[in-house]
Amino acid sequence: MHVACGKCLQCRTGEAHICQNVKIIGVDADGAFAEYVVIPESNIWKLDPAIPQEYASILDPLGNAVHTVLAGEIAAKTVAITGCGPIGLFAIAVARAVGATSVFAIEVNEHRRKIAREMKADYVIDPSKENASAFVMEKTGGLGVDVVLEMAGHPDSIRTAFDIVRRGGRISLLGLTSKPVSLNFSEDIIFKGITVQGINGRRMYQTWYQMTALLKAGKLDLHPVITDRIPMKDFSKAMERLKTGEASKILVYPNGVK
Amino acid sequence: MHVACGKCLQCRTGEAHICQNVKIIGVDADGAFAEYVVIPESNIWKLDPAIPQEYASILDPLGNAVHTVLAGEIAAKTVAITGCGPIGLFAIAVARAVGATSVFAIEVNEHRRKIAREMKADYVIDPSKENASAFVMEKTGGLGVDVVLEMAGHPDSIRTAFDIVRRGGRISLLGLTSKPVSLNFSEDIIFKGITVQGINGRRMYQTWYQMTALLKAGKLDLHPVITDRIPMKDFSKAMERLKTGEASKILVYPNGVK
Amino acid sequence: MHVACGKCLQCRTGEAHICQNVKIIGVDADGAFAEYVVIPESNIWKLDPAIPQEYASILDPLGNAVHTVLAGEIAAKTVAITGCGPIGLFAIAVARAVGATSVFAIEVNEHRRKIAREMKADYVIDPSKENASAFVMEKTGGLGVDVVLEMAGHPDSIRTAFDIVRRGGRISLLGLTSKPVSLNFSEDIIFKGITVQGINGRRMYQTWYQMTALLKAGKLDLHPVITDRIPMKDFSKAMERLKTGEASKILVYPNGVK
Amino acid sequence: MHVACGKCLQCRTGEAHICQNVKIIGVDADGAFAEYVVIPESNIWKLDPAIPQEYASILDPLGNAVHTVLAGEIAAKTVAITGCGPIGLFAIAVARAVGATSVFAIEVNEHRRKIAREMKADYVIDPSKENASAFVMEKTGGLGVDVVLEMAGHPDSIRTAFDIVRRGGRISLLGLTSKPVSLNFSEDIIFKGITVQGINGRRMYQTWYQMTALLKAGKLDLHPVITDRIPMKDFSKAMERLKTGEASKILVYPNGVK
Repeated sequence: MHVACGKCLQCRTGEAHICQNVKIIGVDADGAFAEYVVIPESNIWKLDPAIPQEYASILDPLGNAVHTVLAGEIAAKTVAITGCGPIGLFAIAVARAVGATSVFAIEVNEHRRKIAREMKADYVIDPSKENASAFVMEKTGGLGVDVVLEMAGHPDSIRTAFDIVRRGGRISLLGLTSKPVSLNFSEDIIFKGITVQGINGRRMYQTWYQMTALLKAGKLDLHPVITDRIPMKDFSKAMERLKTGEASKILVYPNGVK
Repeated sequence: MHVACGKCLQCRTGEAHICQNVKIIGVDADGAFAEYVVIPESNIWKLDPAIPQEYASILDPLGNAVHTVLAGEIAAKTVAITGCGPIGLFAIAVARAVGATSVFAIEVNEHRRKIAREMKADYVIDPSKENASAFVMEKTGGLGVDVVLEMAGHPDSIRTAFDIVRRGGRISLLGLTSKPVSLNFSEDIIFKGITVQGINGRRMYQTWYQMTALLKAGKLDLHPVITDRIPMKDFSKAMERLKTGEASKILVYPNGVK
Repeated sequence: MHVACGKCLQCRTGEAHICQNVKIIGVDADGAFAEYVVIPESNIWKLDPAIPQEYASILDPLGNAVHTVLAGEIAAKTVAITGCGPIGLFAIAVARAVGATSVFAIEVNEHRRKIAREMKADYVIDPSKENASAFVMEKTGGLGVDVVLEMAGHPDSIRTAFDIVRRGGRISLLGLTSKPVSLNFSEDIIFKGITVQGINGRRMYQTWYQMTALLKAGKLDLHPVITDRIPMKDFSKAMERLKTGEASKILVYPNGVK
Repeated sequence: MHVACGKCLQCRTGEAHICQNVKIIGVDADGAFAEYVVIPESNIWKLDPAIPQEYASILDPLGNAVHTVLAGEIAAKTVAITGCGPIGLFAIAVARAVGATSVFAIEVNEHRRKIAREMKADYVIDPSKENASAFVMEKTGGLGVDVVLEMAGHPDSIRTAFDIVRRGGRISLLGLTSKPVSLNFSEDIIFKGITVQGINGRRMYQTWYQMTALLKAGKLDLHPVITDRIPMKDFSKAMERLKTGEASKILVYPNGVK
């Protein structure tokens, strides 16, 4: 989905996902809702035959999840995921597959919390009902979690992220927010000696190799995230279900659901 | 088991496992076969109540496995383990738990190969019967594996390690050998751009935290490695079974098997 | 100066500088302004005879600078230092010594800018007179700097840090601030794919080994930062000079200046 | 000089320098001694005007040095370089520029030792006259060096490398050897917990950015390595001087020395 220029410093040093001149299919050019899409040959990734066909259409957000989870150490670590849209839900599966030992999923929407449970998060928390920070701190013996994957992009969840990360831990930020967020740098970052990462897109092509390997090995069961399979003519109806959170990932079949 | 001095460069910079003045319980001082053992307070690690009691006696070799597997990137990678003594067998479980996508176990002893299968290695190979290198290269599409964990300490298995690691891959050496091993540095290391690591002991205390977390989360089923449970009076008989490879880890009960 | 407990997770995994139970000499207990100070044996670091005696009293802030500069890759990179108090000034010397190729020093106080020039910063900028961000962006060909070391703890300098760091770059935060700082997480961190680190104290004892090695090798000339050498009786006068920024580091001699 | 395929795993994950299908100009195709050379556009690197013109012809071996030195931590570390051909000599300059605190140069050829001294190695040792290992161990207080850059490719120098590296240190192997080398894996690698890296070529394009930055900043004085400047007609004579070691890098001018 990201078309990198191939010539800037970032592209030439293994950081093409933050290319200075990136064009995004669907933002800077027609994307998957258009009748035809033009993309460079190098952006085409051949689906391994061992991977279920229907996963093809969800590889991009899965890639975001893989990139975020694997942006630092994760094996034998406790992880909190704030926000369980599709990427957050995928991140539950990925984190478990690569050795996270406790996964806390924090999400206000009840439909999404239901899927988070199906993805086998160890703890699923509704921050509108209970104090998520207090809950995480208690379950980690007052330590906090090693890793927070922030995938909601909401000032409240970002606040929670900084509250529950342990001293020396990592916060990986993926969720976009248009609102400014206020931090107390001394208390929130410096005294705790934490690392905060901005995560953008997927690593070209490391993320794709990682995803392929995990999927081929059967390490990721993503079916709970695919909530709807619809013929294209029901498009508008499906969009409604996305808004309420009842639907997570919707597979749209041009010629009728198979 | 390793008593570090706490004052050398290595101890003071997070590398106490390769302390310049290390004393090893069982080598430099009486160990677990003695009636009484004296160890410093800081070497005592309290078993978490959630961890099965019988795992207590196998944490040291499990720690070697955890240290070796996690000495570099492993998630979404292919791994070969050359040598399936207890540590190699544990390494199968650990590698799987932290996201290795294919685990090749290479071992000449049939008893050990049987356990390797129970530990759910993806491929179990007898290098005395088939060409292990050819097998691995074929299964990896000619690429070789990302990571080799060398746990046999035999010149043949070391040779295999260098043959099957992919360009840019990692070989982590744990298996001790008294025999000199001959390498072609240009072909074996330099042109392939690989990294070779010597792995010694367990990281203090990082490995112990990692082990505890993985065991508490139920990520490791180590039971197949515990082949024998004997009363102490049958000690000599058990030793025989170790020599043939029929036994892997033997739990010795001072007051009769519970 | 940091007395770590030696028993928490952080202490036991090489992160004692962010010990959960840290006591700071001078904050939690009497410090260098007291007649007597009690510190644990393990906090004593013997000065190598090759290191100038007068550097002994400035090793703590030098350690902050070494920790910050070496908290990520720095060789062959461009670096901006926002805030040139003593630690910022030391950081100029350290960054140059370990291969930073351009050092931008940004500081409002004219006395400090003068010392920054003596420390051989490549560019010294007064952000009250000129647009620091525009200057840095121009000199880096619109790219921004690879690394920002934030040592002022002022909302304005923090703002500058996020403006001038390049995509994929690092911001290491050391300067404390009591005021909340507002960020646009999407623009400031996520799209740029940057890493933000909280830096606290010095790494025990890695930083001390690094400092000793650099000083013994004559890689750091810190004399410009030592602006005043006074007998203890002139203490109050010296404090005045600190407030105006005329003085940077002041050596206080109990028995008269030697 | 390395033409990478751009499509293999290594090329697509930032490791193009160990491309599976690499072609080397001068080995797999006509190189700099041919009248015309054909190389892909992406292999052309524009010399920054701030870099002395005559350095253009030595960037490839300088790149090997930069790649080797920066293949691991180097700041505030002690370094030994075994073998002072041009790449070893360049490595002295690079190591010093990025903060190595002691550089030991070990070389049998007297001409090369002379240049090593001009490159400001801290210690220059003739292993045919004195015991290089004993010398290094004494000067490092019995510890050994943090980093060894092996650039001779001779069994004796490789032996020395393993003898002088400290516990937990790094050996980066660049020097090619056609002879098999015998190691005691237990003593030489495992008990010491060292890391051994094979270094091949230069990182595309990270090394080139690093080189450019260091040269532009005036951090590297490479003139002592350029021993000869000759018109092309004196080619054979120059080759003689290369064999004796009197010449290190020879600049050949097609139209007479400028």
